[in-house]
Parts: sequence; C-alpha cells; structure tokens
Amino acid sequence: CWIRPSPGECNTNGIGAGGMRKVLVTTVPFGDRVRLPLDLLEAAGVEYVINPLGRKLKEDELAEMAVDFEVLIAGTEPITEKVMSRAPGLRMISRVGIGLDSVDLLAAERRGITVSYTPDAPAPAVAELTIGLMFSLMRSIHVANAQMHMGEWRRHFGRRVSELTIGVMGAGRIGGRVLRHLAALGAGRLLVNDTNPECRLDSTMPGEWVEKDALYREADIVSLHVPLTAQTKNMVRREQLLGMKPDAMIVNTARGGIINEADLAEVLRAGHLGGAAVDVFCEEPYNGELSSIERCLLTSHMVSMSIDCRTRMEMEATEEAIRYLAGAPLQGVVPPAEYQVQREGL
Amino acid sequence: CWIRPSPGECNTNGIGAGGMRKVLVTTVPFGDRVRLPLDLLEAAGVEYVINPLGRKLKEDELAEMAVDFEVLIAGTEPITEKVMSRAPGLRMISRVGIGLDSVDLLAAERRGITVSYTPDAPAPAVAELTIGLMFSLMRSIHVANAQMHMGEWRRHFGRRVSELTIGVMGAGRIGGRVLRHLAALGAGRLLVNDTNPECRLDSTMPGEWVEKDALYREADIVSLHVPLTAQTKNMVRREQLLGMKPDAMIVNTARGGIINEADLAEVLRAGHLGGAAVDVFCEEPYNGELSSIERCLLTSHMVSMSIDCRTRMEMEATEEAIRYLAGAPLQGVVPPAEYQVQREGL
Repeated sequence: CWIRPSPGECNTNGIGAGGMRKVLVTTVPFGDRVRLPLDLLEAAGVEYVINPLGRKLKEDELAEMAVDFEVLIAGTEPITEKVMSRAPGLRMISRVGIGLDSVDLLAAERRGITVSYTPDAPAPAVAELTIGLMFSLMRSIHVANAQMHMGEWRRHFGRRVSELTIGVMGAGRIGGRVLRHLAALGAGRLLVNDTNPECRLDSTMPGEWVEKDALYREADIVSLHVPLTAQTKNMVRREQLLGMKPDAMIVNTARGGIINEADLAEVLRAGHLGGAAVDVFCEEPYNGELSSIERCLLTSHMVSMSIDCRTRMEMEATEEAIRYLAGAPLQGVVPPAEYQVQREGL
Repeated sequence: CWIRPSPGECNTNGIGAGGMRKVLVTTVPFGDRVRLPLDLLEAAGVEYVINPLGRKLKEDELAEMAVDFEVLIAGTEPITEKVMSRAPGLRMISRVGIGLDSVDLLAAERRGITVSYTPDAPAPAVAELTIGLMFSLMRSIHVANAQMHMGEWRRHFGRRVSELTIGVMGAGRIGGRVLRHLAALGAGRLLVNDTNPECRLDSTMPGEWVEKDALYREADIVSLHVPLTAQTKNMVRREQLLGMKPDAMIVNTARGGIINEADLAEVLRAGHLGGAAVDVFCEEPYNGELSSIERCLLTSHMVSMSIDCRTRMEMEATEEAIRYLAGAPLQGVVPPAEYQVQREGL
C-alpha cells in the first residue's frame, strides 16, 4: 500500500472519504536517508501519499496520480497544463530543488496555483559533484577504474587544475560556487559567461567575463550551470562541441537537453574531445548511446544527492507545503523573473 | 631496436664497443608526452638506452639489462644489492620521483653509488589525484559510472566535504598539500598524524594532530601519504580497517603494501567501509582481487602522471644525470635521513 495517512487523518481525509487529499509527494527519493520530512508531515497532521513507482513519473502517470490532491511536493517530473487540468483541486506545487523547467509556470499562474522552490539548498552538493567530475576527467580516473576492473593496466596521463582554463557557463548560485572552489584549488584561468544578459560578475567572484564563443574555444573544461529554458535547450550542439579544443572536456550537471545528447555521442565517437561528464539527461532513467562510450563519465542525476543537501531540500519543500496548508506566509515562492523566462519562450 | 644512441656517440660508446655505456632509462613512460628529457640527453651528447619492455622491470630483468651502464634514470623497479652487484660500473642512480623504497640505499652507499631523486616534482599531481579520488568516493561517482555503462540507473546518496572528518596520515610535501586543498574546499575537520616521530605541524598547516588510533577511529576518509618503509609496510591491516567507521573510506596514493591488499579485499567483501581508492600496488601491473570489488576505485599508479609533473620529474632526473656525467655539482642528492630510515629497518 503506497498510502501513508497520518494518524487520525485517515478517516476524515483518506482515500474514499470523498474530500480532497492533502499532499502527494512525487519526488524520489523522499525521507530515505533522513526521515525528518516525513516526521514533519506527520507532526503537522498532514495526510500524505508517496509516489508508489519509486522513480521519476511520466506526464500521464502524474496526471492520473495527482487527480485529487491539493499540494504536490514535486521532483523534476513534468507538471504540465494537462496534469493541472486533470487535478482541479491542485492549489500548490512545492518543488524539491531549483530547476523549474519541469513546471509549466504560466499554466499554474492561470489556474492560481502557487509554486515554491528551494533554490539555495542544492548548490553546495551540485558544486562539489561538479568539481569531482572535473577531477575524474582531468586524470581519467573513470577510464582507469573501468580498465582495472577488467584486468587491464593502462596508465593515463592527466592534467592539473593550475594549468587549465576552465569555462563556467552560468554564474548564478551554483556556477559561483564552482568558480570559488576552482579558484581555491588554484585553477589556471577561469572564464565566465551567462545566458542571462543581466548577469554580471560581482567583484567577489573569481574569473573573467568572456563572450560565449570565446568560452567554448579557449576552455580546457566547459561546465554548464544554466537553467533549462527555450534559450538553453540544445545550447551545446555539434557546432559548439566541434568548436572546443580537441582534448577539451565538458561537464553537464545542470539539466538534460542543454547539451544535445546525440551530438555529444557523435562528436565523442568521432574522436573529438578528451572526455565528457554527464549527470542529467533528457529522459531519466537514462540508457542511451553515451553508455557505450568509455571516456564519457556518467552518473545518475545524483548532483544534489548529498545527504545534507537532499535533506535540506526535502525539509524546505515540506515546510513550505505545511505553511501553505496552515495559511502561514510562504518563504520560497518562485519570483516573477522565472515566470518571465517561460513567458519569453519554453 | 631499443637502443637510441645519440648522434656521434654510437661508434665510440655504443653496444659492442666494449666500453661502459652511459645512461639506462628504466622508468616508464619517459619522454612520452613531452620529448624534452630526450632532447636534453641528446643535446648533451649522452648515449642512452630506454627500457625496451615498456613496463616496470622485475629485479632479474633489471639486473640483466643494467650490466654495463654507468647511470640509471630509474622508476620504481627494484634496484637491489643483486642488481648493483651485477652492474659493477654503476656509479649513479637518478630516481624519477620521490619514493626510495625501491632502492637499496645502504648497498648503494657501500658501493659508492650516488643516489639522487626529485622529491618536490610529483607533489602537486599526487595531491590533486588524491582529492579527485576522495570526491569519487564521497559521491560514488565510480560506482554510478560503472552501473550506467551497464545500463543500470541507480542513484547514490553521497556526502559533502564540509561534513566530513578527513584523516591525513603523513604530513610531508604531499600530505601538506592535500591538507591545504581540503581546507580550501571547506573540509569539516582535518586530523593529522605522521609515522616520523620528529614530524610536527607547522603553524601554516591546517588540521589537528591526533594519535594514530584516533585518526583511524574518527575519520570518515583516511588518506595515506607516508613512504614505504619497514615501519609502514602493512601499517594498515585488518585491525586498522575494522577500527574505522563502517561507512568510512580509505585512499592509498602512497605506495603499494602500506595497506595490506588481502586484508582490504576481505574487509570490503565483508561489507565494512563505504569504499576505498587504490592507485599503488605491491605488484604492478596489478590484477588482483580488488578488481572484482565495485566500490573499490582503482587506478594504475597514475598519481604523479599529470603531464606537467611527470615532465618536471623526468627533466629534473635527467638534468641530475647529466650533471653527474659532466662532473657538475648535484642538486637532488638523497639526504642522510633517508639512509637512516633504511638503516633502521627496511
């Protein structure tokens, strides 16, 4: 049974009682390593149901599951016009995380559905995984490990952070942290660009602002830290990849689709680029052609999954949902600029 | 043909000429990515021969190969009493790197063979690979990558550097750099110990000095940065590994044999420890039982193999060999303390 009603709520608000159910938790995992968010819901007397499939939901699955819920504590599953139209009682979406590409904000706005998120919570975990992936690429750790586990001893030359030019595309919460970590590690040269034309480097941020083309052309590692929007979808295609140095490397811990996956596979197969690290995919779970390319380092959308950051994300999103249900002032409401981004495109 | 005589030297000093040959380069690789050390030998008019097997030599192979050479530019192959006794004309060993466990310094001393090394050159590359391996362990990058390449999507929880206690065993050139990198990345707590009783933390070194037992007991990650000596051989056995936290992790980028390999495999198989990263092995090339343990991250003695550090090591060792042959003052002579270490044990 995938329903866990809180004590005392079951008879009044549970399934079959005819009324609206309170909270559907769609994000996976939830309360897995640290039970606190579940405790919080239960202490608040909130009935909740957890995604029974244990994986990212597809649109139709979510549309069917969300029908009679008032609040979603949501992951990155598509919360579309269709989903909302099938859930007329939906009043609030509390996103566990930062990206809003999965939520049709304009549809939510039209229907008066409040959307909150947790934009600060994932940043430390994302920045650290990004640095870790860069080190694996720089020293071919992933390639050597795979070979050693097959009984092959091949020694790979690597490069050091102080001799490299690293280009960070996206200078927000996460890109800023990546830049600071790299500067602390003594990175050779840091190049920065952002897709937001209003973004400027503040004086505390390491790195030099360059045009996008120069960033791809000059960087030994390009790391992407932009949201998925109409503007950034397929932002890195064949042309950008071929414009990079032959031994350059690219890291995507932002969102699937920012790099065109087919183009990346083709370019790597053709022998261009020293390697790539990809944590996020157009369709997750991923099982596509990048899996057969040895120097393509793959992880399973784990970028925010440090125990501390994941717990903080789940707690913040849960607290926000409880505040909503209690009629208390919200703290994580998505700002108008995010609606503007979608109004202009996606 | 594995002999590359320098122009003009071939007829006078080449094989078959009856005289002593000058330089045998046993280390692998050499002049591979950057040709400078070969250029240097040739510009100095020094005849040299490069290890034709293209891998680490065993004692007997080296003994046979070194017979009529005056200088060795050496890797980590065993330069023993036996090797020296078979090479009566050997006058100088120029080690590419820092470890001296492979050289019988006391036998060299008895025979009046000069030994030089390049202790500073590898440190930046070693420290960075160590940090990279730690990030892989912290976030299970290696495990996720292996699974993704087999078409399995499993998301792993990880930990962040700021919540961890990291124990660094060995506070010399390399351990000191590792500590500074970790401090710059905001590591939670840094514990330090050293097998050298005279070692003390200077005030610029981050970390707190603790007893060895406390370091194993309290650290979430233990990283080894001590030389291989009689004292450190099998320093980390079953007892030390089982004394670590159940989810702790251990990194060995120092020398094979400091962690007992059979004990590490047994302990990991039994489910203790969150993971291990091993770059150095008792016998290299390695193909032992750690290869079948997924959460054991393995690399192929690549720790000093960044292009810049490897080139610096090869250049420094080559310059020292040329200085020796030219009768110029040497700059990298192994200090008496290293002889003392061997006198006391190994």
